Amino acid sequence: MAIHFSEAELKGRRERACRAMAADGLDGLLIFRQESMFYLTGYDTFGFVYFQCLYLGADGDMFLLTRAPDLRQARHTSVIEEIHVWVDREGVNPARELRDLLHQRRLSGKKLGVEWESYGLTAANGRRLDHALDGFCDLEDASTLVSRLRLVKSAAELDYVRRAAELADEAYDRALDLAGPGADEGAILAAMQGAVFEGGGDYAGNEFIIGSGPDALLCRYKSGRRRLDARDQLTLEWAGVYRHYHAAMMNTFLIGAVSDAHRALHAAAREAILECEAALKPGNSMSDVFMAHARVLDAHGLKDHRMNACGYAMGTCFAPNWMDWPMFYEGNPVELKPGMTFFIHIIIANSDDGLAMTLGRSSIVGESGAEVLSKRPLDLVVR
Amino acid sequence: MAIHFSEAELKGRRERACRAMAADGLDGLLIFRQESMFYLTGYDTFGFVYFQCLYLGADGDMFLLTRAPDLRQARHTSVIEEIHVWVDREGVNPARELRDLLHQRRLSGKKLGVEWESYGLTAANGRRLDHALDGFCDLEDASTLVSRLRLVKSAAELDYVRRAAELADEAYDRALDLAGPGADEGAILAAMQGAVFEGGGDYAGNEFIIGSGPDALLCRYKSGRRRLDARDQLTLEWAGVYRHYHAAMMNTFLIGAVSDAHRALHAAAREAILECEAALKPGNSMSDVFMAHARVLDAHGLKDHRMNACGYAMGTCFAPNWMDWPMFYEGNPVELKPGMTFFIHIIIANSDDGLAMTLGRSSIVGESGAEVLSKRPLDLVVR
Repeated sequence: MAIHFSEAELKGRRERACRAMAADGLDGLLIFRQESMFYLTGYDTFGFVYFQCLYLGADGDMFLLTRAPDLRQARHTSVIEEIHVWVDREGVNPARELRDLLHQRRLSGKKLGVEWESYGLTAANGRRLDHALDGFCDLEDASTLVSRLRLVKSAAELDYVRRAAELADEAYDRALDLAGPGADEGAILAAMQGAVFEGGGDYAGNEFIIGSGPDALLCRYKSGRRRLDARDQLTLEWAGVYRHYHAAMMNTFLIGAVSDAHRALHAAAREAILECEAALKPGNSMSDVFMAHARVLDAHGLKDHRMNACGYAMGTCFAPNWMDWPMFYEGNPVELKPGMTFFIHIIIANSDDGLAMTLGRSSIVGESGAEVLSKRPLDLVVR
Repeated sequence: MAIHFSEAELKGRRERACRAMAADGLDGLLIFRQESMFYLTGYDTFGFVYFQCLYLGADGDMFLLTRAPDLRQARHTSVIEEIHVWVDREGVNPARELRDLLHQRRLSGKKLGVEWESYGLTAANGRRLDHALDGFCDLEDASTLVSRLRLVKSAAELDYVRRAAELADEAYDRALDLAGPGADEGAILAAMQGAVFEGGGDYAGNEFIIGSGPDALLCRYKSGRRRLDARDQLTLEWAGVYRHYHAAMMNTFLIGAVSDAHRALHAAAREAILECEAALKPGNSMSDVFMAHARVLDAHGLKDHRMNACGYAMGTCFAPNWMDWPMFYEGNPVELKPGMTFFIHIIIANSDDGLAMTLGRSSIVGESGAEVLSKRPLDLVVR
């Protein structure tokens, strides 16, 4: 079995989840987030793309309902002992099979939490679930019950986060080596992703982002690579990932030459990320970090060219999204605590003059402040 | 703008979608599947991880509601002209903003189709949508309306599929070069993914699958790489991807030596894939292809070691899943037509003796039969 934590650590996590259920008056939890399944049992798959549910009772009782291709996957990667399989056929409704399993457990009339906020539970399957359980038991949203537990990392998890950060730095080095006039974006992407895989790392929860020229202002992946111009700008956002733990970074390299305007944007971005990292300490809120970002950029006259969010938690995210809960935005009350890990990104994009500048790196919240994970400088990169 | 099809082709697709709506008695469509957005407008993003909806009226009227980071993404990659942005803040409900936009369009009391079966619409957001539109208009499942149109590819799309298949073959060659006793799985994965990126290709809708030793029996990605033993088995499933069009392949390489048992499994897998490809012709159903797979493997005494499905359509899938609609399983009535593209995989996994054998490749359905896309042989690979 390829389980990346001790069985005792996994058991401790399940016990904390059971206590959280009890505190919320829940008799059990219907788990659809792959992140939660990985956290509680080690179960590692993308089989959540079809209907799949892990049941965990407040009493510790547990079973998985999944498709045949994931039966062995669960056996090889998790501590789950009871696995039920539903079979593809016209008109099949796995939600009804789930109800039958819950019925056998005498859970009729009980109150169950559900992870409705999950890519592993499409709205279509959510409706099937609602219909199948209507009148059978009471359902209540518990989408963040496990996510809240995942937020503060254990020592073993932080080891993986630090290894992920090393892989992110190695990907940065590869990009730095290749970037320059005439360089091919596809070759840069291959080298960066290769650094992570060759270091034993994993795919990230979403695609690495690469864009140059006018598309350096974008902050999503898109199809279509190009070669860098003699004078250009190249925006990259990537993550080192180890055992599914992420450590993201972001940077905009300037190619060929630097204008004063770009230099000024970099100075603002650098000041902003340092101010955010200064605010990243126990007792502060997520909103405090966002407000540091906004204060600096707005003072530089960049209010119209910044984002409404400046980062988010880093954790064991699965596709299609490495942005873990919660996010840095105005008014987010979640309090920072030691052992949390975050990615802070400063994104400045001015569509009027076509200039982009970004800076981003990940940190662990320590007892008194941020432990920045990247060993690379924040200096302006010109190739 | 980086749009990979002519505006005329995109317009033709939207017109066909509008006709399909009219035929189904729908006044408009609430689109949440990124595949549908890409197909109809070129829009290329992973921003669907948050609430995002493309509205297309049966009259051709169209707007997008998304978050700020995707405003520029939509402008750079799509023909969408009207873009509305919702802003992250505590208690925000973008579904209500969507209702207001629909209300301005005088769509009160109308009948709208919804893509409920979409990773871009979690059950939580589906519930918000239901509540926001309750009593405002009638909703009806239209999850496959655009998927059905996507199934038969145009000449321009088939060009991309063929390029994707070349990238898949190049990834195969890289794996063949590196595989052997002592080889590192991580290096193999880096080389395969690198071949796709260096060729101008894209990330696949899900992770490439790599597993050796006992994990060669798995058919999902998982974290944790190892080195191949002196005698080993290595299962790989990967896709060349170009402009998001996929051409998948699958193979199990034997390392160091071959047993008679493995040889027999390969012979069965080879016979099965050829029989499936013979069944892949216009007029046959998806079920016919599955039954060819089952007939061959069952005759080889492998009924207990095969899957309940043997492949699926290939198309422009986004994360977390490259398995496009529909799938080859018993009883699936969807009829095969020229221009459809499919991945057929034969997966044999025997947990009793720990042996795995797989073979898979993609084909276009031609006027009279399958056009197999890979140029590589189906021979047993021993390294």
